[in-house]
Amino acid sequence: MSARPETPLLDQVTSPEDLKQFSDAQLTQLAHELRSETISAVSETGGHLGAGLGVVELTVALHAIFDTPRDKIVWDVGHQCYPHKILTGRRDRIRTLRQEGGLSGFTKRSESVYDPFGAAHSSTSISAALGFATARDLGGQCDGGLGDAIAVIGDGSITAGMAYEAMNNAGHLKKRLFVVLNDNDMSIAPPVGAMSEYLSRLYAGEPFQEFKAAAKGAVSLLPEPFREGAKRAKEMIKGMAVGGTLFEELGFSYVGPIDGHDMDQLLPILRTLRQRATGPVMLHIITKKGKGYAPAEGAPDKGHATAKFDVVTGKQQKAPSNAPSYTSVFGKALTELAADDPRICAVTAAMPDGTGLNLFAERYPSRCFDVAIAEQHGVTFSAALAAGGMKPFCAMYSTFLQRGYDQVVHDVAIQRLPVRFAIDRAGLVGADGATHAGSFDIAYMANLPGMVVMAAADEAELKHMVATAAAYDDGPIAFRYPRGEGVGVELPEKGDVLEIGKGRIVTDGKRVALLSFGTRLSEVQKACEALSSKGISPTIADARFAKPLDEAMILDLAANHEALITIEEGAIGGFGSHVAQLLAENGVFDHGLKFRSMVLPDIFIDQASPKAMYDVAAMNAEQIESKVLDTLGIAQIGEKSA
Amino acid sequence: MSARPETPLLDQVTSPEDLKQFSDAQLTQLAHELRSETISAVSETGGHLGAGLGVVELTVALHAIFDTPRDKIVWDVGHQCYPHKILTGRRDRIRTLRQEGGLSGFTKRSESVYDPFGAAHSSTSISAALGFATARDLGGQCDGGLGDAIAVIGDGSITAGMAYEAMNNAGHLKKRLFVVLNDNDMSIAPPVGAMSEYLSRLYAGEPFQEFKAAAKGAVSLLPEPFREGAKRAKEMIKGMAVGGTLFEELGFSYVGPIDGHDMDQLLPILRTLRQRATGPVMLHIITKKGKGYAPAEGAPDKGHATAKFDVVTGKQQKAPSNAPSYTSVFGKALTELAADDPRICAVTAAMPDGTGLNLFAERYPSRCFDVAIAEQHGVTFSAALAAGGMKPFCAMYSTFLQRGYDQVVHDVAIQRLPVRFAIDRAGLVGADGATHAGSFDIAYMANLPGMVVMAAADEAELKHMVATAAAYDDGPIAFRYPRGEGVGVELPEKGDVLEIGKGRIVTDGKRVALLSFGTRLSEVQKACEALSSKGISPTIADARFAKPLDEAMILDLAANHEALITIEEGAIGGFGSHVAQLLAENGVFDHGLKFRSMVLPDIFIDQASPKAMYDVAAMNAEQIESKVLDTLGIAQIGEKSA
Repeated sequence: MSARPETPLLDQVTSPEDLKQFSDAQLTQLAHELRSETISAVSETGGHLGAGLGVVELTVALHAIFDTPRDKIVWDVGHQCYPHKILTGRRDRIRTLRQEGGLSGFTKRSESVYDPFGAAHSSTSISAALGFATARDLGGQCDGGLGDAIAVIGDGSITAGMAYEAMNNAGHLKKRLFVVLNDNDMSIAPPVGAMSEYLSRLYAGEPFQEFKAAAKGAVSLLPEPFREGAKRAKEMIKGMAVGGTLFEELGFSYVGPIDGHDMDQLLPILRTLRQRATGPVMLHIITKKGKGYAPAEGAPDKGHATAKFDVVTGKQQKAPSNAPSYTSVFGKALTELAADDPRICAVTAAMPDGTGLNLFAERYPSRCFDVAIAEQHGVTFSAALAAGGMKPFCAMYSTFLQRGYDQVVHDVAIQRLPVRFAIDRAGLVGADGATHAGSFDIAYMANLPGMVVMAAADEAELKHMVATAAAYDDGPIAFRYPRGEGVGVELPEKGDVLEIGKGRIVTDGKRVALLSFGTRLSEVQKACEALSSKGISPTIADARFAKPLDEAMILDLAANHEALITIEEGAIGGFGSHVAQLLAENGVFDHGLKFRSMVLPDIFIDQASPKAMYDVAAMNAEQIESKVLDTLGIAQIGEKSA
Repeated sequence: MSARPETPLLDQVTSPEDLKQFSDAQLTQLAHELRSETISAVSETGGHLGAGLGVVELTVALHAIFDTPRDKIVWDVGHQCYPHKILTGRRDRIRTLRQEGGLSGFTKRSESVYDPFGAAHSSTSISAALGFATARDLGGQCDGGLGDAIAVIGDGSITAGMAYEAMNNAGHLKKRLFVVLNDNDMSIAPPVGAMSEYLSRLYAGEPFQEFKAAAKGAVSLLPEPFREGAKRAKEMIKGMAVGGTLFEELGFSYVGPIDGHDMDQLLPILRTLRQRATGPVMLHIITKKGKGYAPAEGAPDKGHATAKFDVVTGKQQKAPSNAPSYTSVFGKALTELAADDPRICAVTAAMPDGTGLNLFAERYPSRCFDVAIAEQHGVTFSAALAAGGMKPFCAMYSTFLQRGYDQVVHDVAIQRLPVRFAIDRAGLVGADGATHAGSFDIAYMANLPGMVVMAAADEAELKHMVATAAAYDDGPIAFRYPRGEGVGVELPEKGDVLEIGKGRIVTDGKRVALLSFGTRLSEVQKACEALSSKGISPTIADARFAKPLDEAMILDLAANHEALITIEEGAIGGFGSHVAQLLAENGVFDHGLKFRSMVLPDIFIDQASPKAMYDVAAMNAEQIESKVLDTLGIAQIGEKSA
């Protein structure tokens, strides 16, 4: 690691209160120091670098001018909050970011009074800020008091439906509210900067309404500022932002665009807005993701997320990978199948890389649809693609599919349309913590009539399930798989089309049957190795399907074992509950069966390594072993049963 | 009932193909006949009248000009589809609307090839139409073929986030696509009509791009066309629509506004658009809800939904009600509590009447928030109100809360914020059918850590639960209750604050314990009366809480009975699954218990009376009785066990 940067001003800051003493020039200097400290910290921890570097100046300006924690800053998504954490009393822990027991990579209410509203999923900030502004006007009381509410939202996040719903409501309620639109897709070309400075000077000296008129007039001075971007969503926002027509229609006073890295613009404009705003205000700032750190600025993703790295060279220290990730196995398998099946197409909600669809998009661009941060639309769009005879694979993380749940029910399941749901990041996800855990999808998908729900036990199984989903045309089908690398099994040349509703016996054994749904299978196998040394040889089965269940196999396991234990990487209400219902309805419990269902515990589990998180969940091999012994009533020496 | 109207032209129509032979004048006449037939039909069946009357001309024009079913008309929500059903081969069944075995009140794929995409929840139509257009361009095959795609969406529906997401994507994909914005909030004042006619003539004769320019120029001729409306959402859309700026920013060609009741405008413009459109087109039409039927036009809701009525007088035949509805009990209870607690506030997503919050809003307008069709925003807004020290009651139908599920997880549950979810229309709902069933909320709420989940057994219990939710400040809490009238129990003056996680024994009995969660309790009681004549006197318990469970009570019931049967108005994964997990973890099954869990069956149940739907679900008294006998192994004469 490189030496820590010199930060004489930052060293004087223990809380945002300390910023009030600084001159504007000192605040500018402080921003430089804060940028260096952020780079240094993330070089040690890894994490989201580019977003934070883009808002260093904004962070300093907001804390210098507003009265936090009484005034509530709500950072959308939260990737950009590291500089904010450094300024708000968490500098001493900033090098624990995203680690077990350390600071969250997002804002988090339980972490600091300066985080009034946690985030991680996008586009919630305007709703939250509006709620605070409304509570304030109703006389609500909360920690730190209730003053102004400021949402900071990116040009990507503001294109989601939820942000639009919130602006629509804010314009109606007409409450004093600040939204900073952090537009970081666009480089700041000099003419834009000049215009912004012009606006900035205007704002500093003139009454508010005149500013607005001037701002509008000045729009005509602009050159073509908006380059062709990759995403229509962003272009659209930029189109609207010129002149701010949409925001004004929504009842906002629109100010901007200004250079979000120029403290000489930010500070006077924010001071003016704070003094004079009476209703909702939209401040449009132009920033650069990764600003001030060349390796980030030069990266294709502008340093969005990074492993630990060397500050001087920017070189990241990535662990060598042993097996392909589930994500890439999915992406490759789908791309291979698409060669022979022109009906296969794919839908992602702004996550082509995260879902592995980048491979597919490269090969079949006309069949891959990035619908922007729009899970609701993405699911219904997939439903109609299916109604139109295509085979859509709707690839979303488990946690984000929650955004499209009503559409899964109403447009897909009720109409029994053959949408294929590729559910990535199922189960616990590691450093992203509780907000990104894929805990609920088994329950919320498997209770929908007509839905087929599979989970892959390893990467070869995933390849089979992609093939199975492609071949299945009778209704909706979902398959889930975790974040991270596979277990290293050999991948078949071609995936097999599995029989719907059939599980498999992995190992024949006695007394106890362990019935796994998903990638806990390898932990189950480890547990059984340990058990065999104690004279217990369980039967191991891979359910493959939570719906329809392999009823014959499960009833057979129940009939031929003293105990049956299910395990799944999901919360209660899913696979184990379906098995329990089957057993109950068949009268299996009437005469006794040692049945247990291992599910995620009834807590939100904080960030750690996935292994450590599954320890908390009591779902690793040792704990499975304990569960078996405990269920069979075999005393365990030196430890309490789980 | 009044005599059937004379409909000579309509009588010649057996499919939309028959419209091709008619002159424009005949199509105008056909629209008149279709209006009369619609009024006559709904007078016999009850249902949604106003919306259909507003689109009679549009319906005729679309079917006359487009080539359905090859071209796909997607009606948003579907309330307005009755005239469409009459024209598309379903006239002979139109008087069975919303009845058991009859036509659905919405579009439904299984009903007709002319319903390419079912609806019921709002704002899905643009996503669906875009999916069809995309499938067409990819060579997809489906019933009827794949031609143009036309979404018809109201000015209310288009304000939802999902519609915005779809427009954003449509503008990007640039596919030929038609969206008809059916703006029915505004009466058509003569000047608007004149302007529209002017535009209509322009469109008929000039190239497409010139139409657009003319349309834009003509906007300046408009008087103030947009009256102050109740909802900001609608004002906003109107503001945007003048000149179509937003839609054009989104990549649509915008045409309008025109008079949607004037066939001399509709027909030529639609013909022109069909001939010339290359990308997405937005046609903005102004219509009048309830058009052409004075009692509907004069009604405050413009005849939105009606019981059977007399065509001449408009007088509705409503059954006298015996007990207050659950909805009104909730609304009154909350309003009473708010008198003494200034922290209580309420949030609805465009359903103030449907949720009973109209009462609250009248008394406490500053504390009641109608956020428009915006469940995602509504939930997160509620979360921040709670973070700001208020006591928000977020009142939504079970089926619509699905739209805000991610926000319930991410913004409410993970942050453990005390939002109170008042979940109306829980369980099966009757005439609205499967799309409106509140089947899944127990499962999707109760598996969230820290969530308290209650269900009311009767209207008095509901009043207690409102009081309990108001008093509970430790985290989120939800209470569910069904559509319709209570059972007629006496309402307490004041609701009691229930102990969290405590159920109640209703009747002490023997052998079998029936554990009810929700309003099946009265059916359970009826079943037990019948059983007592057979010498069986079950214990009856009301769980009140699915989470936290009353573990002591449930384990005690299990220990002291041969059989334990749970019952709930919800799908698998909910209350019964939580009870099963409790019993399994406590080893209760090890030595045998006749445990059964009665849940909604694994099918989507079609419209019928709620009683008939619960017969299908096997959850009425007789079926509960059978379940008890079957579980106890007592032979039943002349019937098979459920």
